Amino acid sequence: MKIPEVYLIEVVHAPGNLSKVLQVVGNEGLTIEGLQIIERTQQKTIWELTLEFDEQVNDHLFDGINELGIAHVIGRSDRVMNRHHGGKIHTVSKTPIGSWQALRDVYTPGVARVCLAIQDAPAMARQYTNIYNTVAIVTDGTAILGLGDIGALAGMPVMEGKSALFSQLADISGIPILLQPSTPDEIVETVQRIAMGFGAIQLEDIAAPGCFEIEKRLCEALDIPVLHDDQHGTAVVTLAALCSATEQVGVSLNDSVVGHIGLGAAGIGITRLLIKYGVKRMLGSDLSEQALKRFVSQGGERATLDELMKTCDIVVATTGVRGLIKPEMVREGQMIFALTNPDPEIEPTVALQHGARFAADGKNVNNVLAFPGLFRGALDARAKEFTDAMLIAAAERLSALAKGEHLIPDALDREVHNEVAKAVANAV
Amino acid sequence: MKIPEVYLIEVVHAPGNLSKVLQVVGNEGLTIEGLQIIERTQQKTIWELTLEFDEQVNDHLFDGINELGIAHVIGRSDRVMNRHHGGKIHTVSKTPIGSWQALRDVYTPGVARVCLAIQDAPAMARQYTNIYNTVAIVTDGTAILGLGDIGALAGMPVMEGKSALFSQLADISGIPILLQPSTPDEIVETVQRIAMGFGAIQLEDIAAPGCFEIEKRLCEALDIPVLHDDQHGTAVVTLAALCSATEQVGVSLNDSVVGHIGLGAAGIGITRLLIKYGVKRMLGSDLSEQALKRFVSQGGERATLDELMKTCDIVVATTGVRGLIKPEMVREGQMIFALTNPDPEIEPTVALQHGARFAADGKNVNNVLAFPGLFRGALDARAKEFTDAMLIAAAERLSALAKGEHLIPDALDREVHNEVAKAVANAV
Repeated sequence: MKIPEVYLIEVVHAPGNLSKVLQVVGNEGLTIEGLQIIERTQQKTIWELTLEFDEQVNDHLFDGINELGIAHVIGRSDRVMNRHHGGKIHTVSKTPIGSWQALRDVYTPGVARVCLAIQDAPAMARQYTNIYNTVAIVTDGTAILGLGDIGALAGMPVMEGKSALFSQLADISGIPILLQPSTPDEIVETVQRIAMGFGAIQLEDIAAPGCFEIEKRLCEALDIPVLHDDQHGTAVVTLAALCSATEQVGVSLNDSVVGHIGLGAAGIGITRLLIKYGVKRMLGSDLSEQALKRFVSQGGERATLDELMKTCDIVVATTGVRGLIKPEMVREGQMIFALTNPDPEIEPTVALQHGARFAADGKNVNNVLAFPGLFRGALDARAKEFTDAMLIAAAERLSALAKGEHLIPDALDREVHNEVAKAVANAV
Repeated sequence: MKIPEVYLIEVVHAPGNLSKVLQVVGNEGLTIEGLQIIERTQQKTIWELTLEFDEQVNDHLFDGINELGIAHVIGRSDRVMNRHHGGKIHTVSKTPIGSWQALRDVYTPGVARVCLAIQDAPAMARQYTNIYNTVAIVTDGTAILGLGDIGALAGMPVMEGKSALFSQLADISGIPILLQPSTPDEIVETVQRIAMGFGAIQLEDIAAPGCFEIEKRLCEALDIPVLHDDQHGTAVVTLAALCSATEQVGVSLNDSVVGHIGLGAAGIGITRLLIKYGVKRMLGSDLSEQALKRFVSQGGERATLDELMKTCDIVVATTGVRGLIKPEMVREGQMIFALTNPDPEIEPTVALQHGARFAADGKNVNNVLAFPGLFRGALDARAKEFTDAMLIAAAERLSALAKGEHLIPDALDREVHNEVAKAVANAV
């Protein structure tokens, strides 16, 4: 897992000085994630430089820059942390309660009429509460990002991030629900007990294999949509990217032999959706016997990594293992999607050098593209569940909205999410 | 339980016409809760008239108004219902996520740094999440307003109302949690399982006697403040009103014999706080043996209604029974607080006519005055529980802020809630 660090570097004005600083960074093997001017005076510019580190920051870097004599690391910036300060979400009143009459209408005694109307006809809750615009974002903290089982409290910044994106991209109220360490039985039971207040449930960052059972049982027990985002949100965006890429290259996705390496939550979600989409032959590889059995039960064929690489026209990898696909394993004309972030199973440039017809990494599969529109569409259409037709409609729409050589559209474009929502609602 | 209905009445312009319409309303024994002009033309005015009804609307009223010949009931207004349309709350992002860099800071990969910081030092969640500004508003729907056990779904408009007031008056995120019908054991267990995501718990409209056990066990189990608003919020505002009234009349509250009629959740909360405040002798009356035992266990003396009315200098009633206190029961010089809304145990004017030195009804005890400041103060001071000192500090501040003949201050004045919060925080 790479973590961004942000530095403030003062550079004396002179042609080539910034380039010298960046050369030091490059010599350390670091990629520049961001660079912008913070302040410029007569003699100097202060640059904000964003780098990503695997673990510890390398202090060599500072020395190397300072030794240039024309630049000076003046400090670290708290830009990333600052954006999280005070939390990222807030629950607010939709309208001001500024008068005695407004208070008596919104609260007692007026509110009693609304309560009685809902008691009489529970469907009135759709119109007179925010329930059916509210999604519970439920986690037990067992698989937060690539960080593992760090607990639900430490996962809260991710849940608040999801909620912030729900609000920004689809006008949905996302409510983080942090569960204390629990068995799948207890998680299912707890979510059932509190489900009445929500229009849908998003399961988030819950580890495999528990996540499969939890999702299945909640889907059966509840009459509102339930989605494990790590499985199905990722699957939707991956399917979209595969559709775009195969169309660009001019091959048939469904007639290709597709191989998937790494059958965790994301892998199982992706392979399941590809088979439902119509891919006729799928091979899968994983170290876990249980994961392979699950894959076979949904229609896949088990294979070793070597067999898979030799046999498949299209290879997708979600293993979390950097460099797992060796250059010599690449078959001539293969399409490769090495999706582990931020370090792929094989760098796309390397795969292309070794004969791949097409190669992409995880930057092309941002699951922010899926969940806002999926939930907006399901809520708008009053769906009782997410069906494969809804997931496939979302993927097809995403692929159709991708521009030029891009495999997927811009995740920050609200209109994209609106279009996905419409496609999902139409598929209900 | 009275429910407001709003009518649109067209009245021909002429001196005395509006008065004639209002006379018809008065003849039906109805109180005018609101009256305002909606539209005025050359010949006519459309008035919006708010009335409250016990049960069914009396159609006689329309006939009586229409028969006047100078006015016409043109319809009902949905003003009250409209204020609830689409729900009253929404969860939003605190800052816009408009750029690629903002997305990468707020969501992956930047968010990982914040997660790791919290994993390393859980107290960082105070700074980098909204948890400690968030209150769960938990109900099982068993005692919604005066409507009884109508279920949590039908109670949602009340919970959203609380949340809207939290946001408006104290900048707190209030999250309604609707529990499916559950035993006290299950409620305690469920709240414990999800408590990690909240800075405090407000128990709301949970019926006695379950509410007492649930609150006690949650206070013991959790290290965040837990408050059953129906007991303690109401108690704080009642204590404030009693302080103001006794000061205005010039008697000592603590040296008076105080009687309480009706020992449900509110009654038990009020009597408990009065005894903690320093009232030396308290009598209580209720039909339930269990309620009386609870009252005695906290230091009160049981009494019949007659004994209580004969003995006490100050009488407080929270019975839900209109007209329970007969005029002839009033003792000369007694102070009477008949708090059942909207129809008190005895009308203040009647009590005064029959010798009471002071009389007030439930309009003087609006619990909107207590909960926003109580929770704001507790969260600001990082309190682990609500103590009696905090509740008493809130009551004393409320009483001190009341102006002129008022017993309590204006519930819509944010400064009042701010002052209460400061008093509560100082008492931690």
